[in-house]
Amino acid sequence: MPRQLHLNAFLMNTGHHEASWRLPESDPYAHVSLAHYVNLARVAERGTFDSLFLADGPQLWNNLAQRPAGALEPLTLLTALATATEHIGLIATASTSYNSPYNLARKFASLDIISGGRAGWNIVTTAGAEAARNFGLDAEPAHAERYARAAEFLDVALKLWDSWEDDAIVADKAAGVWGDDAKIHPPRHAGTYFSVQGALNVPRTPQGYPLLVQAGSSEDGKGFAARYAEAVFTAQQTIEDARAFYADLKARTAAAGRDPEHIKVLPGIVPVIGSTEAEARAAEQVLEDHIVHTHGVGRLESLLQLPSGTLELDSELPSDLPPEDAIEGAKSRYTLVVELARRERLTVRQLIGRLGGGRGHLTFAGTPEQVADAIETWFTQGAADGFNIMPPVLPSGLDAFVDHVVPILRARGLLRTEYGPRRTLRERYGLPRPANQYVSTPATGTPALV
Amino acid sequence: MPRQLHLNAFLMNTGHHEASWRLPESDPYAHVSLAHYVNLARVAERGTFDSLFLADGPQLWNNLAQRPAGALEPLTLLTALATATEHIGLIATASTSYNSPYNLARKFASLDIISGGRAGWNIVTTAGAEAARNFGLDAEPAHAERYARAAEFLDVALKLWDSWEDDAIVADKAAGVWGDDAKIHPPRHAGTYFSVQGALNVPRTPQGYPLLVQAGSSEDGKGFAARYAEAVFTAQQTIEDARAFYADLKARTAAAGRDPEHIKVLPGIVPVIGSTEAEARAAEQVLEDHIVHTHGVGRLESLLQLPSGTLELDSELPSDLPPEDAIEGAKSRYTLVVELARRERLTVRQLIGRLGGGRGHLTFAGTPEQVADAIETWFTQGAADGFNIMPPVLPSGLDAFVDHVVPILRARGLLRTEYGPRRTLRERYGLPRPANQYVSTPATGTPALV
Repeated sequence: MPRQLHLNAFLMNTGHHEASWRLPESDPYAHVSLAHYVNLARVAERGTFDSLFLADGPQLWNNLAQRPAGALEPLTLLTALATATEHIGLIATASTSYNSPYNLARKFASLDIISGGRAGWNIVTTAGAEAARNFGLDAEPAHAERYARAAEFLDVALKLWDSWEDDAIVADKAAGVWGDDAKIHPPRHAGTYFSVQGALNVPRTPQGYPLLVQAGSSEDGKGFAARYAEAVFTAQQTIEDARAFYADLKARTAAAGRDPEHIKVLPGIVPVIGSTEAEARAAEQVLEDHIVHTHGVGRLESLLQLPSGTLELDSELPSDLPPEDAIEGAKSRYTLVVELARRERLTVRQLIGRLGGGRGHLTFAGTPEQVADAIETWFTQGAADGFNIMPPVLPSGLDAFVDHVVPILRARGLLRTEYGPRRTLRERYGLPRPANQYVSTPATGTPALV
Repeated sequence: MPRQLHLNAFLMNTGHHEASWRLPESDPYAHVSLAHYVNLARVAERGTFDSLFLADGPQLWNNLAQRPAGALEPLTLLTALATATEHIGLIATASTSYNSPYNLARKFASLDIISGGRAGWNIVTTAGAEAARNFGLDAEPAHAERYARAAEFLDVALKLWDSWEDDAIVADKAAGVWGDDAKIHPPRHAGTYFSVQGALNVPRTPQGYPLLVQAGSSEDGKGFAARYAEAVFTAQQTIEDARAFYADLKARTAAAGRDPEHIKVLPGIVPVIGSTEAEARAAEQVLEDHIVHTHGVGRLESLLQLPSGTLELDSELPSDLPPEDAIEGAKSRYTLVVELARRERLTVRQLIGRLGGGRGHLTFAGTPEQVADAIETWFTQGAADGFNIMPPVLPSGLDAFVDHVVPILRARGLLRTEYGPRRTLRERYGLPRPANQYVSTPATGTPALV
């Protein structure tokens, strides 16, 4: 079969454009509406997307005045969506800094079973002091420390997910023997950040464990991805940068002893779709006109770790910004924003407009053919294995993509036309079911729970 | 309206009898079968039960050889069941010892929104070293310390659930103002066990917060229930004990400054139903015949905190057991079991048989009329506001109760015949929606999210 695109629908209340909630069509309560998300999930499934994705942070992200704040907790919402869908993968963001491995491993295992093998975990270390202060800390842990904890968290979680062999359940009613305790492997982990006896109280799941997804593009983030990630979300503004990132990550994955085919690179794209290019540009302009720029200044200052009042709307960024090394928060996003502003000599007002759509992800306004062309170019020229689709307005932007771009991609042979017999999320991404680390000879046949 | 029963369906894989999985009808994979639980939820809804309930502990509870082990995590499973049901309440057990208030408050708030106000939280402190060792501790915290942490956990969670006023969302698209930051109240909690800045990133929910349920009957447990609980699950072997417990808890609740009508007492009952009394007794005998008694010895030694090898199957319990004060685990269950054995002079083998059905809860074998009579007697004689129904075998035991006992209770006017207009779990239990602690004058009208 020829190589095909992997598409992920990144869902976020009324859409990724910060002003989307102000459009007449938008539901300002969408962020807490199950019906809104059920509709989006079914549209994405109609478009034969590989997966849905929800971002997350355990804190109230912004002032309420500016735009919708708060959200349904992703694992909870995706569990509800699992019962409303049949095929599509369900990728929840969860933090290694502010969860316990035992609790989180259980929840993902439960979702994987309930969804028939469609769970994915977007592993984040969670930048920012606001989250830290909700969990007994005064400030965020240093970037390197967050990643060290994340690596140990993964090791523990992987042990827990493997702590039942696939055939541990015997179910011998006559003999009164339900399971084989010799096939249970408590992790007995004692490390720097965690001490976990185990075993998990959930059997091994259809996928073995959830698809592992990662989205940090710092040095630490890329190292972590090379070691663990099976899919990577990334923000790239130019095809040159995207190609360099793609090649670098595949090389790092090979260097870590893994098959580079087993990590899928998915840049984000905010498609603003019109039946003509002029119509798409007009739609983009309507969104930009709804931005309240004074709100954006505070957020930009926060991202760049500048004191409040530093930036002026109609000037460029200050020339003396610190290097990425000095940033303890979202390192790679910091560099992307600073480079974008410098490259195009944008004023703060213009920069806020550019970031309004995708917070640093590529915004692309055009006809369905132009959007499909851009996707095909990146896909065939070594910049992407697929895309993280981030509609600026929801549900209309996802409707437009599925109704108008998906048919073009299918006609070009770039996207599946139906889901077919593959069942699990990992199968959709073309990845093998992982072996159990405690089993030297894998059990033959299909595991009971698959 | 005359006082009516509140019924809760306590669901547990193939049933509450430890040997239930060995019956020909039972699915040994029921513990991880969404379809099994969806069926049970719909049967309970057909019986107009108030709620479903799932027990939990963050550890692998028993050896696999003995009986089904492991389970789907309750909040995850109940979220899936929320989408498969319309009316019934969804009560998940979660531990205050092994969760963070911010994470848990979010999950319950999300479930309450997704279910339209049907979430309940069975608050447990989690006895046992096995759980402690999954969360970085060598041994379980002392009983009193677990309850002190639980009280602080509740205070923080209640602050988080109230951190949005009901009308915090303004949704003024024209002015570009989504919410009113003056109606957000970060807890800024700094206590003995937790430091939580807040606010929650989920708006106030249909119920304000989940129904608060509690099941510990120790002195600490009853004090906690009097202060916080709106429903209490309890194990009582005799109507005399149940009446004393009921009167005591209502008095403690009044003494804590709360309306004693606002705490519902629900003893557990394991109904073994037959079309004749002899048939019911025979069904009970079939279950007892499937018990592997040698497995039960180890579990009983563990409950009584005795060294392995202390108990002999055909002797009574040793006479020199320690008093409840010396027990750091499940105190009240310890006393119940010891008193049952002494009162009836049971051998260890007989005690294991008696505990096989309900682990200390009352097992009652009889015709549907006899079961209904027992329920009515306890309900009208000051021993119960309703019952925690614990079918010995699932699904057949729940089917039998709904098909044969429920019609009798309805004919006697003791149970609702349909759900009617009440929507939330707290409304079903006849409880008011809680006021927001940060609002002196409650908002008028119906909150936007209800």
